Amino acid sequence: MTSRVGVIGGGQLARMMIPPAVALGVELRVLAEAENSSAALAATAVGDYRDAETVLAFAADVDVVTFDHEHVPQAVLAALVAAGIPVHPGPAALAVAQDKTLMRERLRAIGAPVPDFARIADAAELGAFLAAHGSVAVVKTPRGGYDGKGVRVVRDASDVDDWFASAGEDGLLVEEFVPFRRELAQLVARRPSGQLAAWPLVETVQRDGVCAEVFAPAPRAGRLVAEAGALAERIATELDVTGVLAVELFETDDGRLLVNELAMRPHNTGHWTIDGAVTSQFEQHLRAVLDLPLGDPSPLAPVSVMVNVLGGPEGELMPDRYPAAMADHPEAKLHSYGKESRPGRKVGHVTVVGDELDDVVARARAAAGFFQG
Amino acid sequence: MTSRVGVIGGGQLARMMIPPAVALGVELRVLAEAENSSAALAATAVGDYRDAETVLAFAADVDVVTFDHEHVPQAVLAALVAAGIPVHPGPAALAVAQDKTLMRERLRAIGAPVPDFARIADAAELGAFLAAHGSVAVVKTPRGGYDGKGVRVVRDASDVDDWFASAGEDGLLVEEFVPFRRELAQLVARRPSGQLAAWPLVETVQRDGVCAEVFAPAPRAGRLVAEAGALAERIATELDVTGVLAVELFETDDGRLLVNELAMRPHNTGHWTIDGAVTSQFEQHLRAVLDLPLGDPSPLAPVSVMVNVLGGPEGELMPDRYPAAMADHPEAKLHSYGKESRPGRKVGHVTVVGDELDDVVARARAAAGFFQG
Repeated sequence: MTSRVGVIGGGQLARMMIPPAVALGVELRVLAEAENSSAALAATAVGDYRDAETVLAFAADVDVVTFDHEHVPQAVLAALVAAGIPVHPGPAALAVAQDKTLMRERLRAIGAPVPDFARIADAAELGAFLAAHGSVAVVKTPRGGYDGKGVRVVRDASDVDDWFASAGEDGLLVEEFVPFRRELAQLVARRPSGQLAAWPLVETVQRDGVCAEVFAPAPRAGRLVAEAGALAERIATELDVTGVLAVELFETDDGRLLVNELAMRPHNTGHWTIDGAVTSQFEQHLRAVLDLPLGDPSPLAPVSVMVNVLGGPEGELMPDRYPAAMADHPEAKLHSYGKESRPGRKVGHVTVVGDELDDVVARARAAAGFFQG
Repeated sequence: MTSRVGVIGGGQLARMMIPPAVALGVELRVLAEAENSSAALAATAVGDYRDAETVLAFAADVDVVTFDHEHVPQAVLAALVAAGIPVHPGPAALAVAQDKTLMRERLRAIGAPVPDFARIADAAELGAFLAAHGSVAVVKTPRGGYDGKGVRVVRDASDVDDWFASAGEDGLLVEEFVPFRRELAQLVARRPSGQLAAWPLVETVQRDGVCAEVFAPAPRAGRLVAEAGALAERIATELDVTGVLAVELFETDDGRLLVNELAMRPHNTGHWTIDGAVTSQFEQHLRAVLDLPLGDPSPLAPVSVMVNVLGGPEGELMPDRYPAAMADHPEAKLHSYGKESRPGRKVGHVTVVGDELDDVVARARAAAGFFQG
């Protein structure tokens, strides 16, 4: 019989689950926020994911519920569990992804390397942290931030007074400012029954807090490869994460790994796997949440490079530029999220696979460049 | 703006166009024969493809019409063209794929190597052909045959009296019986503007007239690689084929290539390209019919092997066997067409890519075997 996977959220992550669902013969059902969502083809309901009644009605005839994003309230998740509907990742794991302060506390509790941090309630506590950490720190709102939003580098205790004013009783999160060489990401998938599979460690290039490029595998990573893989598998197991877990990492100036962020869903740093790995993160997520045996995460080529398409000419769609881009780059895999361009918006990505990093990077950037002119 | 491709027919070929349409941001609209077709996710209409009114209504808001199969009557195709709707492949090309006698005549006219053949109207003409060709021949019904249906090896002039009884004025097609070493297939794609792209020549293994396995590239093919590529490109150009053209070939006992059949759509012998080539035949078909620049047809691995899943336990679906198959073969790419099994029915396929033919064949057969027990 056909398995039915319900996805809450109709963004590009849900959209990119459609191809492997079609291939495997899994029925994907999406609860989208609006008509004409990125995942509209698979949308079986449109409604508010914060409303338990809406979500329960959507989930009534699926075998498992999973997510396009991590914003579903715990009360709604609890209602799903109470109704006997399998939810992957589960509410306890998702809670850790939903609150950056809780994430830091849990990671420290399991011995994962994290930047020094504190929960702060006012400017005085921020001032004390700054004094103890070289007068520079990073303040984050515990909830709701993404793509650089809700993150501020501070040098003065008054730099986030506006945030304190609206922070709830959980306050804000402050972290030491970590001097790092580069950012890395380690993705793993985990089934409810415990099986794990890790893709190669990748290097990520961020611009203005947004993922811009991913190089797979991370060049010159040496011993970090094994360290990152073991770390991500430990986090997935200790936090009981099911589905795909993305561990965003700093490689510090002194060669250590520190966990920056966690995401419990397919992740931008894994988009290269669609074209560059035997099993993509989207197929693997479906397998994992259905508790099916995981697929081979091996790369298909020595090098894969993914470049995001951000912004582009206002109101255009990526396909408007296909004639020129495809003519120049027949080797580029072009992915449109079906969204109109506007400044800074992720509307798609481009992946190129090949043998030699510099060549592949140049091709991927050139192909993506057609959509950003 | 979003391009809309209309596909007539809701079988697995239309289904397998969905993933690249999602990736590229192309809107796929399928006219299916029935509810719950293999391509139901993209079905925007259900109706009879032999009815011009039905097809015209379906095609009213698409940018181009293409096909899951070659059975749309010429009168319906003519109505589409008269309505100003682009049709790829066009009616003249499709006519050649629809009638095996016409196909032989056209191929001979352009100098493509074909078995000796004749159009026959009765047993006397068949008897004369048999007498001139060693008392064995192959008779085919010119229209409607597929997967071994409508093909009969004959040794006596009376062997197809039943077919003559119902043959129309076009009679039957008789061909010399070709002693061949093996069967090969050469797939190319062609745009309306003339650009061509060829995938590697593949070897196909047929059982009971049905494609069972495909090895890409064809091992030990030597000079045949260039010959087959040039031949397929010549046929595509001379017949003005647009979209994917599959040229099924015999490699004769004396080392020549003869054209066996043509198909003007994605083809079973190209399913390996989904997992084994930079650009799959389904993505390429979409590009070609939209007259977009063609993608790179290069293979992703030294060897790809596709094994069809035929039959299987009556009433089961491939996903019923996923737990065992996936556990044993994490490297296998499993494709379900969403059809219940019954004897001899193609319900899916399995592809494995790798470095060494014997190893990859063994893995692909073993993985497919889980679905045929």
